[in-house]
Amino acid sequence: MKLIKGTLIPIGGNEDKGIEANENYTLEFIEEGILAHVVRESGGIDAKIVIIPTASSIPDEVGKNYLDTFAKLGCKNIHILDIRSKEDSEKQASIDLVKTANCIMFSGGDQSKITDKIGGTTTHSILAERYKNETGFVIAGTSAGAMVMANEMISGGSATEAFVKGAVSMYKGLGLIPELIIDTHFIQRGRFGRQSEAVAKFPHLLGIGLAEDTGMIIQNGNDCTVIGSGMAILFDGSKLTHNNEEILKEGTPMTMANLCIHVLSNGDKFDIKNRKVSVLPIKEPFI
Amino acid sequence: MKLIKGTLIPIGGNEDKGIEANENYTLEFIEEGILAHVVRESGGIDAKIVIIPTASSIPDEVGKNYLDTFAKLGCKNIHILDIRSKEDSEKQASIDLVKTANCIMFSGGDQSKITDKIGGTTTHSILAERYKNETGFVIAGTSAGAMVMANEMISGGSATEAFVKGAVSMYKGLGLIPELIIDTHFIQRGRFGRQSEAVAKFPHLLGIGLAEDTGMIIQNGNDCTVIGSGMAILFDGSKLTHNNEEILKEGTPMTMANLCIHVLSNGDKFDIKNRKVSVLPIKEPFI
Repeated sequence: MKLIKGTLIPIGGNEDKGIEANENYTLEFIEEGILAHVVRESGGIDAKIVIIPTASSIPDEVGKNYLDTFAKLGCKNIHILDIRSKEDSEKQASIDLVKTANCIMFSGGDQSKITDKIGGTTTHSILAERYKNETGFVIAGTSAGAMVMANEMISGGSATEAFVKGAVSMYKGLGLIPELIIDTHFIQRGRFGRQSEAVAKFPHLLGIGLAEDTGMIIQNGNDCTVIGSGMAILFDGSKLTHNNEEILKEGTPMTMANLCIHVLSNGDKFDIKNRKVSVLPIKEPFI
Repeated sequence: MKLIKGTLIPIGGNEDKGIEANENYTLEFIEEGILAHVVRESGGIDAKIVIIPTASSIPDEVGKNYLDTFAKLGCKNIHILDIRSKEDSEKQASIDLVKTANCIMFSGGDQSKITDKIGGTTTHSILAERYKNETGFVIAGTSAGAMVMANEMISGGSATEAFVKGAVSMYKGLGLIPELIIDTHFIQRGRFGRQSEAVAKFPHLLGIGLAEDTGMIIQNGNDCTVIGSGMAILFDGSKLTHNNEEILKEGTPMTMANLCIHVLSNGDKFDIKNRKVSVLPIKEPFI
């Protein structure tokens, strides 16, 4: 297996889709911790940071907010790449930005918009290629921007109907880390069931549920470290002894035996390939 | 280990505490399936059924509703035992009813009320003794009435604050099945986190989360069969390789590695002592 050299930072989000007040609130909230990690991993305050607000229904406001937030953290080289169509993803100006950025930051919103407007374009290929080959290149994303990093992407689903087949809907993501299925706002929106169903559909993949204000720094395409104030819940379906997802009709309750769950918090680590947890020694300070 | 001879039927509920409209709705809803199981396990329509609405804030209405519902199912020998205090639990009339019933049915409401008004009384001892020694004696309960069957009883907790130590509150239950921690309305109210915290506190116990309109028939104090239209989620903490619950401060995110989860539905079985799942063969009809 060829090692991945770039870094992914999926973040659990803290906004509601398209509601301006909440999206503002988020930015203020995550600024203090998680975005500082993003800046550090990208090489510090001189890093060239490119914000892509494509998922948002209010891309102008969201782009501007991230611009202000990164500026508050001391960053000096911040750009907004406001892709609103596949054509935008093919423009030379877009290509130049993603070719020269040290860090790409995807906002929250609707993850399917990112797939539809960036997936399969030149911008997508450059992102994927640079992530694979360039040490220090960071792709971060919050909420929708985190979920789209997967290949099998959760695109919707009901919390209360969870564990009934068909309650979760899937779509293709950008496939940066095809080993994962990523969900966000995990505790706050009761998404345990829809992640379980997603893992039942793709039991060879690892399900990750990120709480709000919580993220993961993923290096070598494999080594995850939890950051932030909440929890990352991992769903390992590789030891399932029973899983009737494939043969069930839609709307029927599911059965799964031996789904393995890990509840991780700040500083805890997970090795995707070996499905191995390393928890922080008990006395370790908050990172 | 001496075998238990009675039967427990905890049910996931479908009502909001004290809201009359919803409590009515519940009764109509569960009547079609789960209560028919309760009647069958109790010996059929001639069984003496005693309804205890102690948990409810509207015991008159709830008692009357269950009376009507069991009557609709064809039952002819139905009684309401409206215990509102520890003194009520010591009355000869109460003792006579619990001594002669084939089935006790605890309503939903506030589980702590059952502990406070029945726990430690003569009514409680008779229930526990008969459950232990009498084949065919059934104790059923929905929502609060299910949760109180445990010894370590969940008495409250927040869904959105889950996985932070102190988010769940515990109280003593009636201790009929001390091997379990029972939660209800499980999917609908996003209670995965609070059950995980409860299991982290008591990792030798098995956590059970019952969805609405879903129950378990528990025989021999050990052998569980899922009934109803939803799911029973089992939390087995016996294989936890890491659990920092004990040393954490309140309000701090928790870490647990290797929590084993089973998602079971109608007809699936679980052996508590051996922590063993037996799922229904795929072609089996709905029970």
